[in-house]
Formats: sequence, structure tokens, C-alpha cells
Amino acid sequence: MTKPLFPAASLATLRTRLADLPGPDEAAAAAAITRQTNLTKPPGSLGRLEDLAILMAEWQGTDRPRIRKAQAVVFAGNHGVCAQGVNPYPQEVTVQMVANFRAGGAAINQLCRASGAELSVVELELDRPTGDFTQGLALSEAELLNALAHGAAALEPDADVLLLGEMGIGNSTVAAALANATFGGTAADWVGPGTGSDHEGIQRKIAAIEAGMKLHAGLLGDAFTTLMAFGGREQAAICGAVLAARAKRIPVLLDGFICTAAAAVLARLPGDMLAHCIVSHVSAEPGQRRLLKHLGKQAVLDLGMRLGEGSGAAVALGVLRAALEAHNGMATFAEAGVSGA
Amino acid sequence: MTKPLFPAASLATLRTRLADLPGPDEAAAAAAITRQTNLTKPPGSLGRLEDLAILMAEWQGTDRPRIRKAQAVVFAGNHGVCAQGVNPYPQEVTVQMVANFRAGGAAINQLCRASGAELSVVELELDRPTGDFTQGLALSEAELLNALAHGAAALEPDADVLLLGEMGIGNSTVAAALANATFGGTAADWVGPGTGSDHEGIQRKIAAIEAGMKLHAGLLGDAFTTLMAFGGREQAAICGAVLAARAKRIPVLLDGFICTAAAAVLARLPGDMLAHCIVSHVSAEPGQRRLLKHLGKQAVLDLGMRLGEGSGAAVALGVLRAALEAHNGMATFAEAGVSGA
Repeated sequence: MTKPLFPAASLATLRTRLADLPGPDEAAAAAAITRQTNLTKPPGSLGRLEDLAILMAEWQGTDRPRIRKAQAVVFAGNHGVCAQGVNPYPQEVTVQMVANFRAGGAAINQLCRASGAELSVVELELDRPTGDFTQGLALSEAELLNALAHGAAALEPDADVLLLGEMGIGNSTVAAALANATFGGTAADWVGPGTGSDHEGIQRKIAAIEAGMKLHAGLLGDAFTTLMAFGGREQAAICGAVLAARAKRIPVLLDGFICTAAAAVLARLPGDMLAHCIVSHVSAEPGQRRLLKHLGKQAVLDLGMRLGEGSGAAVALGVLRAALEAHNGMATFAEAGVSGA
Repeated sequence: MTKPLFPAASLATLRTRLADLPGPDEAAAAAAITRQTNLTKPPGSLGRLEDLAILMAEWQGTDRPRIRKAQAVVFAGNHGVCAQGVNPYPQEVTVQMVANFRAGGAAINQLCRASGAELSVVELELDRPTGDFTQGLALSEAELLNALAHGAAALEPDADVLLLGEMGIGNSTVAAALANATFGGTAADWVGPGTGSDHEGIQRKIAAIEAGMKLHAGLLGDAFTTLMAFGGREQAAICGAVLAARAKRIPVLLDGFICTAAAAVLARLPGDMLAHCIVSHVSAEPGQRRLLKHLGKQAVLDLGMRLGEGSGAAVALGVLRAALEAHNGMATFAEAGVSGA
């Protein structure tokens, strides 16, 4: 990368720069595959652990990928669509939970400690919710560029893997809208209970998304205009962080439905912009399984979690670390003097 | 427990002592459930992590279950049924892999390091394979009692959780036979490729199990006589360790198909002898999914692993640790000043 992605004066400028982002290192992947074949185990018997080690090799550009520093970032935003009654929790919970993250009391704090991730929280204008997407754009072009740049800026260049999560009352509705705009189907296909909506709450979510899809029909063929239509700032920041990580060949662990739906808008761009991303878990939110199918990805975990905050990514990091420990630490058949089949 | 389970002069004596094993601590479980409800997250949103924390509370007998010491034991044995050509690897691989475990070069060494488990390996007369179960008993009553006692003796009383694994060329055939004897169906229902059998190898496995099921038809209604019929020593040791852990209220992480099939024979005993056991993963071996259904248990992971050695249990330990970190470390709504729904 000669030119950093951000700041970018316009989406047009940003699009031009994306064409220069690097692809996978096929030679490193091939060397990692050869190593796996020689380790003291039946070929393929570590299953997904082998795939994860090879993906890490492919993006880190070495047959011995490592995680010295795992960086976790939770982006927090507020959403104008809450005016449509889409969430049972009051909107001030977003700022209260940010305080809880900073005080170390939330699930993500404990889960990052358990798997050895360094956590930071990025608040995105919590006192200025995005526009209500049933009434107009959630974000202007300038606001979108700003949120993308904040996401990109959060990445620390010495991270060996980036974990992404989010917090924002109402953002399961935004996620469902983004998924609907990106992959089609009906609003109802993508809507679930989120933090705990009842039947009527779910109907309000569906109605809001249907209204937004109708209002913004002309914007939905493209990743960035889709983000302008529905927001939110934390979703845009996730996209910015995914792109910044791609520029530095840093693999990414996406959390559950909301995080994956945010990143999934990038599937509309050329160049397979999610190839360096691992989906951490199948959340209980029903849209996540559908997203995985559209993305052609398999999640690492399926634990019925539906909390967000990056919680699933933090648990999946433990599996990723295990995959690399096995890959790097095991003896080969020759080293151990073990007979092959 | 007033009387230790082992040594036991006979299976009849052992059966009597099993009647005194403790059950779950319902009060501790209830207190743990109450705690989960008050933590700063939507109720139930940590999914299986909540269930795991509650199970740990139930067996450790405290609403704040902990893992200070995680003990992993790999039991290794050899099997007379290898004479029937049921495995593509030569039988000396068992002793070679034990040496690899001791030298620190196997997958289980790396995976235990990654999740913080202390690993030990227990060899069970590797130079004296069990009887070929197609020709006669795999184990006499005395041999079975000895293997059970070795399993029980391996448990360190200060362990907070016990991870169980196995190594033994040919033992996926033994596992399939135990599962067939315990839960019925056909031999083909329970047989898979194991470490890498081709179609003809699988047919030899099926034929061996069918011959054994016919020969030992009179022994298959009971946990212990089933173990005498098919063995092997490592399977019996796993059962001994599961029972010893139950006596001390230590939760157990069972590995994949072979380990779960071994422990599953205990489902024939009164008193739900597997209630303190967590199945770590759905292995690629097709019988594992069927075992889980019969046991009414859900696995923690589904990573397409099929290595054995306790490898899946070591990865699942990371998830279990995450579950307890969240359970013990999170702030309550009241502590954090976060509004409820």
C-alpha cells in the first residue's frame, strides 16, 4: 500500500484506493498446508483448526503464523430508527454499557481476558444518533466517510489479529436492514428478537425495514450507499476496520449477526473484501445462518450466543490460538519417529 | 463418600459402592442461575456459556465455580481386534504416539498448553493387547477392575475439571462396538473412517463388530460386562476416571467419539452417571452425533476434528474457561448502573 485508505475526500477516492488492496499469499498458504500434512496426526484430523491455521498463514504471509497481539475493538453508536420502537431497552443503555466496558464489568471484558485480547472501545457520537432511516438517510457521505475513517484508525498496526464487535441499542434492526439490502429476500427473513423483542417488537422492526427499503430503493446496489441509507456509525466503523486490516494483511474475527451484517455490505465491492475475515460464531439471531450461506463462510462456534460486544469473537480467539499452537508446536512424523499409515 | 470406589474385589462390590455417589447440588445451581439473570446482558444471551457455568456450579457445589487446576489425562491401550485388519496404521504407533506425548510433540501437548491444562499420559499394558473380541472376551473381570482402578487413580483430587482422552490403534472399532452394544442399531450405524480407513477397511470394522456382537450377545445388557466383551483398557480407564470424578464432584470434559462411546456404557448404570460430564465436541466420526442423541447431550464444539488424544476436550476447555470468566467477573445491572429492559 503506497497510499493510506483514509482520510479520503470522497467515496469515489476511497473506491479507487480499494483497488490496490493486497490479496492472499498463496505461497505461504501452500507451505502451511505442507506443514499440516507432515504433523503427527492423520491428515485433516484437526478439522477446522487446520483451516484456521492456513488462513492465518495466507494473510500473515508466513507458514508459521503467530498471535502475539490480539486487538479487540468494540464500536458503539446510536440509531435514529429507535424512534420507531424497535428495541425494548432505552437508548441510554448504549452509553451505560460503554461505561460498563470502560469499568471492566461487561461480558466482553471477561472474555477478552480469558482469551488474551487487548480491548478498546470506540464511541461514535453517542449523543448524536444517526438519521431515522424510515424518514431519510441515516448518514450523509461526509458522516459515512468519518465513521469509516474512525474504524480504520482504531486498528493498531502491530495487531496480529483484529476482533470486531459492536454495541448500539437498536442496531439489530440496522443489521437486518443492511443484510436485506445486500442479499435481498424480505425484511422478515432477516429480523429476529435481538436483545429480546417480543412478537410486536419484531413486527415493528420489520415495518421499519420495509419502510427503509422502499425509501432507499435507489441506493441499495452498492456497499457505501447502503451504509448511507441505513447506518449506523458503528457498522460503518466495522467496515473501515475490515478494510484497514485488509490493507495490512491482518486477519479479522467478526462477531455475530450485527457485526457480520455490517461487514457483509463489503461483499458488494470487487476483490473479495472479506477473504481475510473469519466469522466467529453462529449467533442465536436467525439471520446469521442466512448471512453465512450468502457469504459462503462457515462460523467457528455455534454456542447460541446473542450478546454482541464482540463476545463471540473473543471466545473464537481461543480456538484460533489453539489452532496456531497445534500448527506451530507439533512434531512432524520424521521428528517424532512415528510410523505413517 | 465414606468408602473409595477402588480397589474393589469384584464388580459386585463396585456396583454397591456406586449407589453412594453424590448427585448435583441444586441449591448451588439455583444460585448460579440467579447470578446469570442479574449480569449486565439480556437474559440468556451468553447461550451455552451460561449453561456451562451453571453445570460447573452444580457439581462444584458453589455459585462461583472456578478452574484453578484443569487436569487432562490421555489413556493409551492396545487391542486384540487389530488382528482383524481394522486399522491402516501399524499397532506400534500407539507406543510411538505415547513417546510423542511424553516428548511434547503431539497435538494434545500444544492444545493443553493453549488452554492451560496439565497433561498426563497413562499407558495401560501396551505390550499386552486386550483379547480379540471376535474370538473371546477382550478383558477378564480382574483385568477390567484393574483398568477401571487405573483410570480412577489417575484423577488428582485437587483438579477442578478433568479432561479425558485416549490413544490406541484400533480403538475406533472398539468404540463403535461399545456404542452398538449400549444403544443398539447396526454395526454400520456406528462405524466411520476413524484415523483413515477406506471402504474396505470400514467393511472389516463392521464385520468384526458384527462377529463380536453375536459372540457376546449375552453380556450386552450391562455396562461392565459390555466392557469385558469389547474392552479396551483405555475405555475402561475412562469409565473409572468418570466415576472417580463423580465421587469427588469434579466436572468432566469428554473428548470425541471414542471417549464419549467409552463413557456412554455408564449410561446403563442407575443414577445418571454422566450428569457431571460435558461432551466437548462433535467429531467428524459419524457415530458421535448419534451418541449425543442417545445421551441427550449437546456438544460444545463442532470443528470437524477426529484426532482423539483429548484434543477436542482441550479446545473446549478454553470455552469453559471463558464461560466461568464471564460468570464470575461480570458486573450486575445494579453494580454497573445499567437500565434493564
